[in-house]
Amino acid sequence: MVESTLCPKFFKATEILSKRWNALIINQLLSGPQRFCSINSSLPISGRLLSERLKELESEGIISREVFPEVPVRVEYTLTAKGLALKNVFAEIEKWSKEWIQLEEEG
Amino acid sequence: MVESTLCPKFFKATEILSKRWNALIINQLLSGPQRFCSINSSLPISGRLLSERLKELESEGIISREVFPEVPVRVEYTLTAKGLALKNVFAEIEKWSKEWIQLEEEG
Repeated sequence: MVESTLCPKFFKATEILSKRWNALIINQLLSGPQRFCSINSSLPISGRLLSERLKELESEGIISREVFPEVPVRVEYTLTAKGLALKNVFAEIEKWSKEWIQLEEEG
Repeated sequence: MVESTLCPKFFKATEILSKRWNALIINQLLSGPQRFCSINSSLPISGRLLSERLKELESEGIISREVFPEVPVRVEYTLTAKGLALKNVFAEIEKWSKEWIQLEEEG
């Protein structure tokens, strides 16, 4: 028999990271705090869906939303320490993708 | 302006890894070749869905399916070199989950 290695914390982590767009949103914020429109223009995703995902990631403690009382008001999204700690995960995904993913146009 | 870091290879990698159950199936096979029923019993997923995902991961070149002509026939799933190369990604997810994921019952 093969023993299951399914730790609940690992399971929860893959649930968060596997939710469509979450990985790309987190990856985008690894380059620094960003405004909504800037994240939105970097990803092929609707504003409504991005807003939903940002709220979920905020409730998971992965990103924080800061409001700057300027005119017009400025809202920025930043990775928390928990979110920044995902840096190595994304570095490994990037390494893997460079080495192993072949795009169709490359034959 | 923030420059988009969305490389098509990275995008494709997150598409594969983000598809529900794929990460957990690959993680399960990191412990070695396994038969269908053994993968199935380790994950809360229907046989039909597991079979679909295994076919997709096979077509991505991440797992291979080996048939041993025994009686009854034995079918095993194994990670290819491309699949095994994901080891570091999963090691980093595990590290992150241990450090940062709090389960509800822990308060």
